[in-house]
Amino acid sequence: MLGSTHGTLTTHSRPARVVACGEQPPPAVHGVSEPPGGVDLDVSGRPLHAPVPDLDRFFRPESVAVIGASDSEGRPNTGVTRQLIGWAERVGARLHPVNPGRERVFGLPCHATVADLPEPVDLAVLLVGDPVPVIGQLAEAKVKFAVAFASGFAETGERGAAAQARLADAVERSGLRLLGPNTNLNAFEKFREDLDGPAIALITQSGHQGRPVFTLQELGIRLSHWAPTGNEADLETADFLSYFASRPEVGAIAAYVEGLKDGRSFLLAADRAARNKVPVVAVKVGRTETGARTAASHTGKLTGADGVVDAAMRQFGVIRVDGLDELQDTAALLARAHKPSAEGVAVYSISGGTGAHFSDLATAAGLRLPTLAAAKQTELHQWIPGYLNVANPIDNGGHPVGDWRGRKIIDAILADPSIGVLICPITGPFPPMSDKLAQDLVDAAEETDKLICVVWGSPVGTEDAYRNTLLGSSRVATFRTFANCITAVRAYFDHHRFAADYRSPFDDAPRVMSPSARKAQGLMRPGQQLSEHAAKQLLRAYGIRVPREQLVTSAAAAVRAASLVGYPVVMKASGPQLAHKTELGLVKVGLTSASQVRDAYRELTDIARYEDVPLDGVLVCQMIERGVEMVVGVTHDSLFGPTVTVGLGGVLVEVLRDVAVGVPPFGEEQARAMLGELRGHALLDGVRGAPPADTDALTEVVLRVQRMALELGGDLAELDINPLVVLPRGQGAVALDALAVCH
Amino acid sequence: MLGSTHGTLTTHSRPARVVACGEQPPPAVHGVSEPPGGVDLDVSGRPLHAPVPDLDRFFRPESVAVIGASDSEGRPNTGVTRQLIGWAERVGARLHPVNPGRERVFGLPCHATVADLPEPVDLAVLLVGDPVPVIGQLAEAKVKFAVAFASGFAETGERGAAAQARLADAVERSGLRLLGPNTNLNAFEKFREDLDGPAIALITQSGHQGRPVFTLQELGIRLSHWAPTGNEADLETADFLSYFASRPEVGAIAAYVEGLKDGRSFLLAADRAARNKVPVVAVKVGRTETGARTAASHTGKLTGADGVVDAAMRQFGVIRVDGLDELQDTAALLARAHKPSAEGVAVYSISGGTGAHFSDLATAAGLRLPTLAAAKQTELHQWIPGYLNVANPIDNGGHPVGDWRGRKIIDAILADPSIGVLICPITGPFPPMSDKLAQDLVDAAEETDKLICVVWGSPVGTEDAYRNTLLGSSRVATFRTFANCITAVRAYFDHHRFAADYRSPFDDAPRVMSPSARKAQGLMRPGQQLSEHAAKQLLRAYGIRVPREQLVTSAAAAVRAASLVGYPVVMKASGPQLAHKTELGLVKVGLTSASQVRDAYRELTDIARYEDVPLDGVLVCQMIERGVEMVVGVTHDSLFGPTVTVGLGGVLVEVLRDVAVGVPPFGEEQARAMLGELRGHALLDGVRGAPPADTDALTEVVLRVQRMALELGGDLAELDINPLVVLPRGQGAVALDALAVCH
Repeated sequence: MLGSTHGTLTTHSRPARVVACGEQPPPAVHGVSEPPGGVDLDVSGRPLHAPVPDLDRFFRPESVAVIGASDSEGRPNTGVTRQLIGWAERVGARLHPVNPGRERVFGLPCHATVADLPEPVDLAVLLVGDPVPVIGQLAEAKVKFAVAFASGFAETGERGAAAQARLADAVERSGLRLLGPNTNLNAFEKFREDLDGPAIALITQSGHQGRPVFTLQELGIRLSHWAPTGNEADLETADFLSYFASRPEVGAIAAYVEGLKDGRSFLLAADRAARNKVPVVAVKVGRTETGARTAASHTGKLTGADGVVDAAMRQFGVIRVDGLDELQDTAALLARAHKPSAEGVAVYSISGGTGAHFSDLATAAGLRLPTLAAAKQTELHQWIPGYLNVANPIDNGGHPVGDWRGRKIIDAILADPSIGVLICPITGPFPPMSDKLAQDLVDAAEETDKLICVVWGSPVGTEDAYRNTLLGSSRVATFRTFANCITAVRAYFDHHRFAADYRSPFDDAPRVMSPSARKAQGLMRPGQQLSEHAAKQLLRAYGIRVPREQLVTSAAAAVRAASLVGYPVVMKASGPQLAHKTELGLVKVGLTSASQVRDAYRELTDIARYEDVPLDGVLVCQMIERGVEMVVGVTHDSLFGPTVTVGLGGVLVEVLRDVAVGVPPFGEEQARAMLGELRGHALLDGVRGAPPADTDALTEVVLRVQRMALELGGDLAELDINPLVVLPRGQGAVALDALAVCH
Repeated sequence: MLGSTHGTLTTHSRPARVVACGEQPPPAVHGVSEPPGGVDLDVSGRPLHAPVPDLDRFFRPESVAVIGASDSEGRPNTGVTRQLIGWAERVGARLHPVNPGRERVFGLPCHATVADLPEPVDLAVLLVGDPVPVIGQLAEAKVKFAVAFASGFAETGERGAAAQARLADAVERSGLRLLGPNTNLNAFEKFREDLDGPAIALITQSGHQGRPVFTLQELGIRLSHWAPTGNEADLETADFLSYFASRPEVGAIAAYVEGLKDGRSFLLAADRAARNKVPVVAVKVGRTETGARTAASHTGKLTGADGVVDAAMRQFGVIRVDGLDELQDTAALLARAHKPSAEGVAVYSISGGTGAHFSDLATAAGLRLPTLAAAKQTELHQWIPGYLNVANPIDNGGHPVGDWRGRKIIDAILADPSIGVLICPITGPFPPMSDKLAQDLVDAAEETDKLICVVWGSPVGTEDAYRNTLLGSSRVATFRTFANCITAVRAYFDHHRFAADYRSPFDDAPRVMSPSARKAQGLMRPGQQLSEHAAKQLLRAYGIRVPREQLVTSAAAAVRAASLVGYPVVMKASGPQLAHKTELGLVKVGLTSASQVRDAYRELTDIARYEDVPLDGVLVCQMIERGVEMVVGVTHDSLFGPTVTVGLGGVLVEVLRDVAVGVPPFGEEQARAMLGELRGHALLDGVRGAPPADTDALTEVVLRVQRMALELGGDLAELDINPLVVLPRGQGAVALDALAVCH
């Protein structure tokens, strides 16, 4: 099994925690103000706001204590102490070595314990094997922050996890905030101070995995912070996410995540970034963790843990990438580029082949390359030979870049109002042309707000035009591959589109139980699977339509029911343990007469007896035809709690796993977006002459199921509406069958 | 419009051409020897063998003429002449300038015409605006090869295309072979002679797009040839492909293709490479060109539908990639790596995070990371602390790489028989560890036949361990990103698996018409769509099962037919123009009595009259139930001729486009592989208690349809069996409906 190598202890039902230092009060929303002294919770009991921890003094402390400081040759702590002294000097912090065995460390006066320090310190760096006993002392000395480097905690197994839990408890009681354990010196690296403009702030669970992003500084990309969160006994990715999203110097946040500690805190932090329009780019390890989970429902098996993470990130605008190189390139672009003035991309190159190849891949990835207007093409043909294509991609044929025309062409493209981004792929260096082209692009970038991207395609990368001209510019975004450029530019458009339209779902999340909840709670049977009939009652409680039906226990009653329900009818065995009724032959459809109903009653009860399935009766149901079969369900995710799944029904849901997941809270827009994510969503538009399906009704069912999932919470272990028949537009949607498992 | 910027003129029904120079006789296959003096053709009239052109004297000429040579300051031909003189010196060729206006060029005696040359030349380089008039002179002078640099041909429009057709004609008559027009000097670049081992041979339609692969030499990767094919008036990608596949120094072929000139010649060349087990990696532009296109676009070239190109490449083992960086990395690996001794990959790193992240992506991409045996883990724990995971990925925790243990660990991993490839991702440089690790890997690579891959994850790339240690080794494959390493290693396993199992489908392709063909030809109605009944006769001619059915023209006859066919029956209107019968209400299913049959007959004929659809009668058919609905069809691809498509039937084929394409010739294995390519192929295995479908019968139908497509050729414009009901295993497959359009 792959996954986190860091011992993040997940607390599934984490209590809302009031954080000691520097909270911001959550804004009043929709007239609902936060209960005085309390925390604003949704109907599932989870917080609707998270305070932004004030980590200013963590990253820029005025005074630092190093517990376990050493200057003895050959001791590991000596190197660390030396590095911390250098860092403290750079950031102007006073550093106090603490070590009972020493008078001075590297010439600085050394104290026996924290209590002996001459001033209260902002940050204590713990270079001790067991940090637990020290936490109390730090708290007494009013230390604000601590960092624990020690390993041997949850990353090593069960005993380590217990030790980590003790550490977390001690920290929770202490009021200080702790980074680590199992972290390192990355937060105290030497950051380049000579770079300006918006910066990348970096969060990495594994310190080593952040190294390439940090190294971007050598290519001229500014970095402002690095939080190597390690085991996250206290401070977690979400804390740094919301803190960085509130810092003015941060243009984008890059995160490398192995395992999330808590789903809700992550969503709230991502929500904070989305509200502040700060882009977040993240690698989340775990693509292969899709394993089938044990669940009785179809949707339960279909929604892998990774699919839920994917959905959560998409809903809150977090741009997920897989490679560290994509993380670097995408974060660097998003940190520095202004909002696009238009969604069109112009591709400009010195080779028609390069332009065609790049445009092909860009278009396939969803970028829009508008055909330039005739007047613009005429303008470009002043400088570019007439037989070359300048419609977009724009092929200059090579020669015009070598003289005064080169810059004219670039400026003319940038002046086109349909163009928001100019991309110039330079496949291979050819100094007479590519050096001049690079310089022209760098010069033009100084005079435009539009984004200019260059792909330097040479595998060598030591060329002057690349290392000095292009990387020397903070306004040109330089890439090494077509793919990474396209990924980053797509993310750039996606982010700005998302940020412009963003409306936090937390603002609209339900805070009080609906009347449906009470009815529904009365139907729950702890530890049991409900019968189909009871499960449908649950749906009715939430206003989800089910067929007219009656539960009967005799053939005569079945006939009476059929005439009330109206012929033709469907008859099904109903019982608390029944799933996969069709396979067992426990469903009869299209019954058109009393005698057929009588026969069916007898047959169903015979089969149930033979198969030894206890029944609570037989359902006589209205027959519903002509609709699109969908499935809607609820599954519990260990990180994010109840999630809602929607997919194509029938045999397809098993074979193609064409489902979309919604992580609550989500609104109507998101529910509609889920339908659009389905590969087979065209089925809902009507194919082969079928009328368009009632997607409004389907969306409404998804939202009602979300409400049910939130209100019933853990009591509803699983729900599976399969099929939900979506009738033609205006006619609604009907749940033909349902499976519900109570916890 | 995207696509080739090169003016390849496509000849759809290209005659098999006997090439003048250096053909190899095709081997006798299955006792069928090539007709003496003729060409071995398949039943569709296309060649089954292509000669390998002898291009030795093109790449290594003994004597070269430069037509239009110049040494006048400022003329474009002067630079080219200078470069050619330098190249001729390097390769030891005698160079003869030809120019009527000059006595000497750069000190070399200059001749007025080719006829005046002191010796027959192997290669003439044409630096003239219009090469057509020169071709005849070259032929008279027995010149073997020519290169035409001139542009202004098919890439510029219709007039250019006509000029190119004249050039192609002149070349065809002359007996010489021509590279170009619209090509450049790339074939005559300075290749590094100091690199050894198997080389990459490069083919690029656009010269500029080959530059990055060529530049790999600066990173120590050997290149042997570069063929910039330009407009391909004569020599095309396929010619170089088969030539390079026959050269002992070539370890892999890298190709950049904008448009293929001829589908069959490409397949035969790819077949040659597959027989010789030479890997071919190709970028093929055209990902966004999905629609079928008309034959001649205004730029004069043609790109086949991308899915067909994809299928053709997959069938013949060509590894298709999208980026030039992937082309470089994959070709470099395949050129140099030995055949794997095992399919297991070991991931070894100095950081648990790095190992987990890489392994996650590698596993998701289909690489196999076997768990190391307990004994091997114990062995590794001699050198790696016990709490670290060494099951695979192997995390050394950092410290052991710094001393003697580093090499021990590598050797122990390489000694594991389950491991064929060792991958070491080094995310960020940390010289005390990464430099030693790089050196150990390079040293170990000298002593093993197993493949060692390193990912140097730093975005900087100027580090000593990267540039000198890793790139200095010809035995370690070094990458810059996780993704490219994974792509290349997957291609490495795919290639060797493919090559080991390869059996050329050309050996088994039909050469003579089957008895079915004669029957089928009798059913064809030129320019017409056949009625369902006639289309089914066509299927029967090829032994494809159709339901028992009778075509009737009265209600009474319908009743008689029904009792012969057997109740329940299906009734359908039948006529030559009928498609989408279901939407029109022209299909009645599940008729169980004579009266229902009579009513249905009346209703169908009424609707047809009302809709003004001419009928040839009504079909009374056996009703077939309980099977998987598929669709099998024939479409004509402008490059590859008739292709066979198989997909999931019903509404799915429209909504999900879940189809697989086979490009003839293909055998049974490939037909089976097509089924495996379907996303919904699990439907054939049986879901929800359904029995497994008769995939043998389905495969047989696909093969029979291929035979029909080849034998009827252009006469059969389209065939669509929809649905083909595949019954449970052992029970066959039945074509319930068919649509056939004659040309």
